[in-house]
Amino acid sequence: MAITLGANQYGKAENRLVTVSRQGSVHHIRDLTVSTALRGDLTDTHLTGDNSKVVPTDTQKNTVYAFAKQEQVGQIEQFALRLGRHFVGSFEQITGARVLIDEHAWQRIDVDGTPHDHSFARSSEEKRTTAVTVEGDRVWVVSGLRDLVVLKSTGSEFHGYSKDRYTTLPEVTDRVLATAVRARWRFSDRAVAEQEIDWAESFATARQALLAAFATTHSLSLQQTLYAMGTAVLRTRPEIVEVRLSLPNKHHVAVDLSPFDLANDNEVFHAADRPYGLIEGAVLRDGADDPGLAWHTLSMF
Amino acid sequence: MAITLGANQYGKAENRLVTVSRQGSVHHIRDLTVSTALRGDLTDTHLTGDNSKVVPTDTQKNTVYAFAKQEQVGQIEQFALRLGRHFVGSFEQITGARVLIDEHAWQRIDVDGTPHDHSFARSSEEKRTTAVTVEGDRVWVVSGLRDLVVLKSTGSEFHGYSKDRYTTLPEVTDRVLATAVRARWRFSDRAVAEQEIDWAESFATARQALLAAFATTHSLSLQQTLYAMGTAVLRTRPEIVEVRLSLPNKHHVAVDLSPFDLANDNEVFHAADRPYGLIEGAVLRDGADDPGLAWHTLSMF
Amino acid sequence: MAITLGANQYGKAENRLVTVSRQGSVHHIRDLTVSTALRGDLTDTHLTGDNSKVVPTDTQKNTVYAFAKQEQVGQIEQFALRLGRHFVGSFEQITGARVLIDEHAWQRIDVDGTPHDHSFARSSEEKRTTAVTVEGDRVWVVSGLRDLVVLKSTGSEFHGYSKDRYTTLPEVTDRVLATAVRARWRFSDRAVAEQEIDWAESFATARQALLAAFATTHSLSLQQTLYAMGTAVLRTRPEIVEVRLSLPNKHHVAVDLSPFDLANDNEVFHAADRPYGLIEGAVLRDGADDPGLAWHTLSMF
Amino acid sequence: MAITLGANQYGKAENRLVTVSRQGSVHHIRDLTVSTALRGDLTDTHLTGDNSKVVPTDTQKNTVYAFAKQEQVGQIEQFALRLGRHFVGSFEQITGARVLIDEHAWQRIDVDGTPHDHSFARSSEEKRTTAVTVEGDRVWVVSGLRDLVVLKSTGSEFHGYSKDRYTTLPEVTDRVLATAVRARWRFSDRAVAEQEIDWAESFATARQALLAAFATTHSLSLQQTLYAMGTAVLRTRPEIVEVRLSLPNKHHVAVDLSPFDLANDNEVFHAADRPYGLIEGAVLRDGADDPGLAWHTLSMF
Repeated sequence: MAITLGANQYGKAENRLVTVSRQGSVHHIRDLTVSTALRGDLTDTHLTGDNSKVVPTDTQKNTVYAFAKQEQVGQIEQFALRLGRHFVGSFEQITGARVLIDEHAWQRIDVDGTPHDHSFARSSEEKRTTAVTVEGDRVWVVSGLRDLVVLKSTGSEFHGYSKDRYTTLPEVTDRVLATAVRARWRFSDRAVAEQEIDWAESFATARQALLAAFATTHSLSLQQTLYAMGTAVLRTRPEIVEVRLSLPNKHHVAVDLSPFDLANDNEVFHAADRPYGLIEGAVLRDGADDPGLAWHTLSMF
Repeated sequence: MAITLGANQYGKAENRLVTVSRQGSVHHIRDLTVSTALRGDLTDTHLTGDNSKVVPTDTQKNTVYAFAKQEQVGQIEQFALRLGRHFVGSFEQITGARVLIDEHAWQRIDVDGTPHDHSFARSSEEKRTTAVTVEGDRVWVVSGLRDLVVLKSTGSEFHGYSKDRYTTLPEVTDRVLATAVRARWRFSDRAVAEQEIDWAESFATARQALLAAFATTHSLSLQQTLYAMGTAVLRTRPEIVEVRLSLPNKHHVAVDLSPFDLANDNEVFHAADRPYGLIEGAVLRDGADDPGLAWHTLSMF
Repeated sequence: MAITLGANQYGKAENRLVTVSRQGSVHHIRDLTVSTALRGDLTDTHLTGDNSKVVPTDTQKNTVYAFAKQEQVGQIEQFALRLGRHFVGSFEQITGARVLIDEHAWQRIDVDGTPHDHSFARSSEEKRTTAVTVEGDRVWVVSGLRDLVVLKSTGSEFHGYSKDRYTTLPEVTDRVLATAVRARWRFSDRAVAEQEIDWAESFATARQALLAAFATTHSLSLQQTLYAMGTAVLRTRPEIVEVRLSLPNKHHVAVDLSPFDLANDNEVFHAADRPYGLIEGAVLRDGADDPGLAWHTLSMF
Repeated sequence: MAITLGANQYGKAENRLVTVSRQGSVHHIRDLTVSTALRGDLTDTHLTGDNSKVVPTDTQKNTVYAFAKQEQVGQIEQFALRLGRHFVGSFEQITGARVLIDEHAWQRIDVDGTPHDHSFARSSEEKRTTAVTVEGDRVWVVSGLRDLVVLKSTGSEFHGYSKDRYTTLPEVTDRVLATAVRARWRFSDRAVAEQEIDWAESFATARQALLAAFATTHSLSLQQTLYAMGTAVLRTRPEIVEVRLSLPNKHHVAVDLSPFDLANDNEVFHAADRPYGLIEGAVLRDGADDPGLAWHTLSMF
């Protein structure tokens, strides 16, 4: 019986990198979680334990920290591209790299109405993300966000659905709709190649498009909201060709207060933990580039 | 050998209550985690399983939801007082109650620069908290916050400490100082009794005092910062007589980049998970009331 | 600009199902987390909110619970197949289903050396898993486990690796090797079609093969251990054609005790949290069936 | 307005210590999470940042690791006592110490029916715990366990409880009872002083008493089970004078299958997350020593 090695990668996951820019008295901080993974001619270490082609994960970690000093980190997409290209360009046997970065948000502490020079408070748990893939001289960039928790207290209905003997759900014309957005969007090959993307502005406006679509879409289903959110990003950012969204439906159950002779007109809810709905989908621009390895080893949604 | 029942309490923990105020088209939401616990003449159920004096935890949960409808929830201290007094006042055998509430923060989604009427995004993971204890006709209120993550990129030193054969830590005159603040503050008996406290303003200004003290204290030790933070709250809010703080020292380790011929002047850090320092202490106003049961069954810090 | 809907699925995630078999006085319990997802002709709900083809996630949940009563749950693969085939077979517009099940382990409490009839204690956090995909009349089964935490206190080396200017890791001929195994293995199309698989025995022996390979492989790299583990499963179970493994390298760092004039011959370690190595790979039997949709929407490793 | 420093302590939390005993080819491992906290004359650092009396938390961490090498760790109570006495005995200004240790469980991997010499798999998430307090020449020992998850599929009733207008819970004579046991037990002053305690045997038999009491008590309330569990420990171990238990009632809700024309005779359950009941209490031997500082800074239950 013959057995072969299939796809594989290895790296250092969740390097917790914090940088402080100390030009002048006003400091700036960045807080990143960086995961690197390398691919290439790695059969020997798997089959015989010959590590001569293995770039240790410890070296990958060192590179992350050293690169953060050698140049400004810049936008997370730029930092991920620097790292990915370095690994692929520096080792003949390493033909591919995937760099994931999550950015954690901070804001300045206000003291007497003035933002402090060097004191910060953590903002929400929402993370800005990127996943950069390098394979030889090709690159793909997929950016996005996760843990953006949003809720609409009205403007959401759910009815007219398919029914069978296991259906007990009442149809409703007004419900709370809440989710924790995980969104990833893929940039066009051309935009990445021409280096014409303002990553910060692209992120800020894509994020705002998601939020506005969530807020303003009168929702007949979370699927409809998902599609509206993805479409809004594509309409706003020409350099983006595909959006993938994973939207847990965080059920808010109107509590039955009738035993206590109380009406409950969608005013009092139990926020349930599990189970939860999970709505996932992709929205694409017509003529989008072939995704190549952009999504390879990412979760699909 | 004789055995006796000691202190005990029971209740329903972590009721996830979300309310929507729907007066007019502009909605307001509240997101609370409410835990109730009752105390009293509960020996029978422990010794024989006779439950005739047990107010079921399910009833406690129902009461939380019903009370949220019968009146506006109001400030979390008010809601906790309503609940605690109800349980103690309604059942002869229930002589005491402790109600814990965490409030989760949301902000309106901006659409084209305008806050949306009924769409919200979760703010930081920081929670506003209260712990109200009722015992007969006495009440104690301990409010505060937790998971307020803050960081100073300079303005922190640590040196001049006691050394022994196990000491290897280098003394530093500049370091990153980061912590996740858990603070609880106790209100004076008189202020609670006279119902003169503006809970919302009290919280907002106490929180701001904590933040400002953290930001502006040039720190020679996290203990010094802790004491400054506690003192700032007491100076700002006369109705508060004691502050207890638990401050994990979230170590940010300057990475040694010298093997790569790079200097690291406090610019590149590894944010470590464990172990972490843990600095805990209480700061009291002279002549503070005896705490009575205010802290009973809470963690000490 | 034209925009289209891409791949999508929706369902109810993490239904927490516990069943009790009460034949006679000796009870048996099963503790499962079941997630269903459906695929098919779902464009309308995304584009217009027309839900006429949507089988509500609530209905999916009800089906899980009802099916657990209508027949014995049986092995998790059988239960997932029943559910998946039901959804695809019952609704014309639903052309595909993916059912994920995690099984949580319990053992009987011993009382005076005798296993108790109806009292149980939770075993380790290790979960037995399955991911069943149905598409029309085709099915794929991928089973496995996760959160199997293992450690070798010797029998692991790491040296001879590629070096560059960012390499500082010392080469070692003896180290602690620890990981949390996530393994998934794919069954051959023929074995699934012929229904010849004893799922319980297949799981038990595949798991044992993983453990024995981890224990007995003198490891020169975690990649070598990964390949040995995958190979061991393939050698043991002819019905399995592919194994995918994700192995975090949970670093145990020998503490430098030399400042205290103490040697540390791999006796005292700090178990680090982050970062960690992450070694991932697939091992395949030659001539393995095309995977089809077996891994679709699963994480790659 | 005068302000004073109240109770305080500081230390290094969650040192993740793993030791390997390498006598001969059969290795033994220990996996501990150790937290130290010191108390004493620490006003200066709080008020002025004068650290001359501060034993750095980094030194505390070093001491933990060095002590693990200087002598065998032994039972966690012994290791905690060694550490606590060291800190109080070595620094004039340090008058008290509290050492918390959690022990994580591992078992040997079986290979062909034989326990392997140096390969291990993690057992359940249950932790054996101790909390040792030293104050001058006094010591207190509180040991226990946590995260011991247990379930009874029958032998539990709940009825006859107090009712009011908010009561909707149906009375039941058969239910699933599940909890995650956190138990702490205090040793008598005399037993600790005379060093007559076989810590390993004491733990093993106390744990077994808890399990047997849970299994064999026909439960009319979780309070009754709690009292039975505490009593069982006291009856089994004369050196223990007090047991405190915190028992979340992990609700298993029998799913209403009547819409599907299915009976559900306590066979199919939804395991709920939140809210959950929380039953807490202490059980004492008559004439138990005054607890002194045994529970100081621990959560009450």
